Amino acid sequence: MPSHRGWIMPESPIRKLVPLARQAEAKGLKIYHLNIGQPDIKTPQEGLDALKNIDRSILEYTQSEGLLSLRTKLADYYRGFNIDVAPEEIIITTGGSEAVLFAFMACLDQGDEIIVPEPAYANYTAFAISGGAIIRPLLCSIENDFALPPFEEFERMITKRTRAILLCNPNNPTGHIYTPEEMEHIRQLVKKYDLYLFSDEVYREFCYTDTPHISAMQLKGIEDNVILIDSVSKRYSECGIRIGALITKNKQVRKDVMKFCQARLCPPLIGQIVAEASMDASDAYMKSVYDEYLERRNYMIAAINEIPGCYSPMPKGAFYTVARLPIDDADKFCAWLLESFEYEGKTLMIAPASGFYSSNSMGRNEVRMAYVMNIDDLKISMELLRRALEVYPGRTM
Amino acid sequence: MPSHRGWIMPESPIRKLVPLARQAEAKGLKIYHLNIGQPDIKTPQEGLDALKNIDRSILEYTQSEGLLSLRTKLADYYRGFNIDVAPEEIIITTGGSEAVLFAFMACLDQGDEIIVPEPAYANYTAFAISGGAIIRPLLCSIENDFALPPFEEFERMITKRTRAILLCNPNNPTGHIYTPEEMEHIRQLVKKYDLYLFSDEVYREFCYTDTPHISAMQLKGIEDNVILIDSVSKRYSECGIRIGALITKNKQVRKDVMKFCQARLCPPLIGQIVAEASMDASDAYMKSVYDEYLERRNYMIAAINEIPGCYSPMPKGAFYTVARLPIDDADKFCAWLLESFEYEGKTLMIAPASGFYSSNSMGRNEVRMAYVMNIDDLKISMELLRRALEVYPGRTM
Repeated sequence: MPSHRGWIMPESPIRKLVPLARQAEAKGLKIYHLNIGQPDIKTPQEGLDALKNIDRSILEYTQSEGLLSLRTKLADYYRGFNIDVAPEEIIITTGGSEAVLFAFMACLDQGDEIIVPEPAYANYTAFAISGGAIIRPLLCSIENDFALPPFEEFERMITKRTRAILLCNPNNPTGHIYTPEEMEHIRQLVKKYDLYLFSDEVYREFCYTDTPHISAMQLKGIEDNVILIDSVSKRYSECGIRIGALITKNKQVRKDVMKFCQARLCPPLIGQIVAEASMDASDAYMKSVYDEYLERRNYMIAAINEIPGCYSPMPKGAFYTVARLPIDDADKFCAWLLESFEYEGKTLMIAPASGFYSSNSMGRNEVRMAYVMNIDDLKISMELLRRALEVYPGRTM
Repeated sequence: MPSHRGWIMPESPIRKLVPLARQAEAKGLKIYHLNIGQPDIKTPQEGLDALKNIDRSILEYTQSEGLLSLRTKLADYYRGFNIDVAPEEIIITTGGSEAVLFAFMACLDQGDEIIVPEPAYANYTAFAISGGAIIRPLLCSIENDFALPPFEEFERMITKRTRAILLCNPNNPTGHIYTPEEMEHIRQLVKKYDLYLFSDEVYREFCYTDTPHISAMQLKGIEDNVILIDSVSKRYSECGIRIGALITKNKQVRKDVMKFCQARLCPPLIGQIVAEASMDASDAYMKSVYDEYLERRNYMIAAINEIPGCYSPMPKGAFYTVARLPIDDADKFCAWLLESFEYEGKTLMIAPASGFYSSNSMGRNEVRMAYVMNIDDLKISMELLRRALEVYPGRTM
């Protein structure tokens, strides 16, 4: 076989746990998954009904930019969030994932740098590597509830090779929502250094504080610099349909992104139909989902903070938290949970935070936990966490 | 705005025609589309029924490698073509497009070269640029019915940077099926120079000659070099569901491809369900589709060759042909058809062959025509072509 060179893609720490989870299941253990972002919330009935009502005899390509009817409806949706975009400024992608990939490929050259507050969604690194770009982490600390560091520190990160800032807001994995002051700082940096601002706002619906969520699209004077990443996966609990969007007022970027879109022909037809129908979900549905997550958040964060030696900031949005545990090494702890721990035939799967930092030395005693399961299961999970920490050999305090 | 650098992606000649087609439609002209690969054949009822029978309340992520049930069924399907692969050697992708992209990204480094017989499917270039690789065209000539050039000429193309050969077999756009001798030559080169062999075989079902179609997966002694690209789009006329596959016995390649798969989370759930059900399409359905294409091919190629000055080889497979027309420049002719020609309120849209060659000077008097419309419309299309050539100002003979 040819010597395999390939691109340098790190293996995510959570993926290394997958075989251990399979072995645990094979032993008959029930695993409570705090590691994943797959909600257990039902997809809106409108979306499910749309599947049954598809009356087509050929499941054909759509336009590469996606169905106009979907883009028109999305423009209306954004208007409800005071985001003013036209249907032609919206490009439908195969999940938010493809939107990130195409944004990087269209806007960045080989070796260009993107500043990303860390901890950060692990797959950004994969897309950066795919696009030949380099992630420069801006470290945010759990001690500071993952707020951005001071303006001056942020500005010092910017080099000649810096081409973009990437935000996830509300943040996966921390749940942080960038404050008006933080967004103003980012606006100033983007304008001063003429950077792209990639803003992943897929958790927009899940903001649990009175502080307003500020979309990058609302920032004045940098309209041509902003590329909004979106997805229906989380807001309608339909991760499997793979429908996202790349939105920008920058015509040249849209033109270049469209070349990548045309090469892959089109986003999924059926997913587009489901997404469009899901947008008719009632306010009552959206509120019930919101209330459910809010209750889960409040329960889980309180429960974590009651366990001796544990600390979680209160996440302001999304449905994750990064918590600090009294452990030597989260990679080891998370593997140990699957390999060596059980309580009444149950154990936990948790994501070590190491996967959310570029540097191997960061986040060694931190984990990401998602609150995407119902309260009863969350209660069992927190009980398991408490008991596991009592007996974990690598406990540090 | 930031100075836009971006990746160098050529704009496809056919895309330049799209605004002209819109203008023609706005004038009330009916356009006969010979330019596209969107079949008018019905999706199998089994696939359409599967949509209506989806009984899930959450449309969730699947495994990144795709549903095991689909991969198992695909392995059975390949067995019917004497291709021996196990379900774990199959990775489901978002269309064949993503399979090509991931194959390039996982196997090639920046600047690596891929030899591709030309004319070739235009989007390969886009995926090569996305992966930082370089397409080296191996010119095949219409005079030679697009067969490969002699072995020695092929071998001379190989340099230190050559890492792979890419075949499309049966070929889009030429309809060529590589002969046993050609496949043996390719096997020898792959083995001698330890290259990857990317083999796009999405038109496998559409072979109209007695010559056997030889899959790259059947070549002996290069099992770890071969990466098969597949898609259900064409064989079940369901291009919009975006389900393809990357298949290889090379474990390391699978492992590296999986990193890209994990980053984009999963292929479309609903498409996978439809694809799996479509594989239950009856032999009668598959035969009727085959017979339909065969009749269209026979009609269209005969009709082209009856028009004075035109020549098309007889395509052995797929549903396209590259034909030579008595014209100065196919880009101009195809634009002229939309801008300046009409007969009884009708005109034609055809793909200039320039988009299928790397060099601007190649294929200037060639076009690709797809026979994916019914015979009645094909008859009108050929009549339009004949009349257009009679009055086209850039006619050369």
